[in-house]
Amino acid sequence: MEIQKPYLLFLGDVPDQLAAKTAHGIVDWRPEWCVGQLRLPGCKADCGLTDLDIAQAKAKGAKTLIVGVANAGGVLPEHWVGKLVEALDAGMDVATGLHRRLSSFPAIAEAARRNGRALHDVRIPDMEFATGKGTRRQGLRLLTVGTDCSVGKKYTALALEKEMRARGLQADFRATGQTGIFISGRGVAIDAVVSDFVAGAAEWLSPENAVDHWDLVEGQGSLFHPSFAGVTLGLLHGAQPDAFIVCHEPTRTKMRGVQHALPSIQAVIERTVLEGQLTNPGIQCTGLAINTEHLAEQEALGLMERLGRDHGLPCVDPIRTGVGPLVDELVRRFPVRG
Amino acid sequence: MEIQKPYLLFLGDVPDQLAAKTAHGIVDWRPEWCVGQLRLPGCKADCGLTDLDIAQAKAKGAKTLIVGVANAGGVLPEHWVGKLVEALDAGMDVATGLHRRLSSFPAIAEAARRNGRALHDVRIPDMEFATGKGTRRQGLRLLTVGTDCSVGKKYTALALEKEMRARGLQADFRATGQTGIFISGRGVAIDAVVSDFVAGAAEWLSPENAVDHWDLVEGQGSLFHPSFAGVTLGLLHGAQPDAFIVCHEPTRTKMRGVQHALPSIQAVIERTVLEGQLTNPGIQCTGLAINTEHLAEQEALGLMERLGRDHGLPCVDPIRTGVGPLVDELVRRFPVRG
Repeated sequence: MEIQKPYLLFLGDVPDQLAAKTAHGIVDWRPEWCVGQLRLPGCKADCGLTDLDIAQAKAKGAKTLIVGVANAGGVLPEHWVGKLVEALDAGMDVATGLHRRLSSFPAIAEAARRNGRALHDVRIPDMEFATGKGTRRQGLRLLTVGTDCSVGKKYTALALEKEMRARGLQADFRATGQTGIFISGRGVAIDAVVSDFVAGAAEWLSPENAVDHWDLVEGQGSLFHPSFAGVTLGLLHGAQPDAFIVCHEPTRTKMRGVQHALPSIQAVIERTVLEGQLTNPGIQCTGLAINTEHLAEQEALGLMERLGRDHGLPCVDPIRTGVGPLVDELVRRFPVRG
Repeated sequence: MEIQKPYLLFLGDVPDQLAAKTAHGIVDWRPEWCVGQLRLPGCKADCGLTDLDIAQAKAKGAKTLIVGVANAGGVLPEHWVGKLVEALDAGMDVATGLHRRLSSFPAIAEAARRNGRALHDVRIPDMEFATGKGTRRQGLRLLTVGTDCSVGKKYTALALEKEMRARGLQADFRATGQTGIFISGRGVAIDAVVSDFVAGAAEWLSPENAVDHWDLVEGQGSLFHPSFAGVTLGLLHGAQPDAFIVCHEPTRTKMRGVQHALPSIQAVIERTVLEGQLTNPGIQCTGLAINTEHLAEQEALGLMERLGRDHGLPCVDPIRTGVGPLVDELVRRFPVRG
């Protein structure tokens, strides 16, 4: 599955900005792929793009309408269906990250068929994966892991890709969630893969590559999250990373959706090394990425300085400080062998 | 999903006994549920049951035809379809553990509709699970874990159920694979669950229960298997066992399907405690179950004696010695509080 660019971002009539999280992520990382946004009356989200209707978007070259919003329950409201049909009739593909297949809406399925257009359900894998093999493959891999869900794993991997490419390094972000897939145009929603094939899907996602090529794999969940640790472990085994970055949100007190306390950064480092060694004996933690958005500047800088010293690792906030020190460390630990 | 008993076991025309592994498992554990077997010309498998045709099976009260064989590739050959239709027309349900849905065969779907019969695809979950919550629930739980796949986890859990019930204890086998589901009439094929919901499915499978009730949960894979460890971890977190038994096959040198060496029993004990503590801080290993079928009697008894002494745990072969000592240990460690 490769999603055709550029995109028209459909925001529907969602009640707040948070519901357009996916669209915001796309605009943050791939503004050059977005010709504009399409909003229905009453929409309270705004990505700061030009408002376009279907005809205007088509005239600007839009190839795919992306449903960049999540409704309550992940459903597609009936009154959005008409706009999606209109886009298909204008010759665009349509892509969503909702749980229900686009083709399960008769009007959408019929319009796609009529116009020969593709429907992308990025949360539903469109291929069958093999089980993981656990054998080493050439190329370098980095996985972002976390003390919890939603602590900046995707953002950190994308920031690393940007910084490494700017330095002339070969690096590819590997998406494992819906927003990441829209941002990179491909990937696997790993939490939607049947459990037997999670490690195999991660192997497929980061295949053999040049000896100095980095795959920057978007992590999911946490080894310490009682709901999702199995997904995290399968992804770790399949990605077989040489390096990992621990992502952390310091003001969070409980893990997302459950009553469990967050593990320490040190616990995540130790457990990730312990488990990751099964498929890559050389696995090592190479840095920390702290989401300090809820801290004042001085507090944030002080915390990062202390965490970096305590763990003997470069420590950044990808947004506040950039990820330069993380890339410095990768270059130092994994020198290109001429 | 509750599969109606008794069963007619359909063996098709498979080329050897191994292909009828599922049927053999059912006969081993639930002979009283099987009215007979149905074999096509050329079948090389034999479960030792009376050979019946559809009419004879119906006359003996068969409620469900179980496809108790796996063909190469897990597919359903076209020439089996006619017999399944005949069973549906005779008023039986049909159940399989194949990957493709029975209803995807038009003749089978139509016959089921025509006769108002159920089609059970036990490898395809028929319900949506919630994500795991990780909160403790009342009742006692035991999980069988392993140094590898296919080392006796299902057999051990079933043997424990039989022995515990014989002693008047409250105990239920909880199936997590297709053969186990046919044997218990219900369960979840955990490796076929979407990865995000594995822990939640395990929570659903072993719900809150009486304080002295044991759920004996069939384990899957191994925490050290590079293909399936994520499934194993999700099942461990969801089952939140109080006790676990390590199952091992001492003549195996490599893990099934991959090049990795088997972990030691001690490594499995330590890792299972380490990971299991996330959802049950009291988790403990209470015994070892060794599959000694490839060893001579004296060698087998010597090995079990040595392993038991080395680990300070009761050590049995469920087939050769029975699981009495494992149940003794459970009763000793988890006394019923009056």
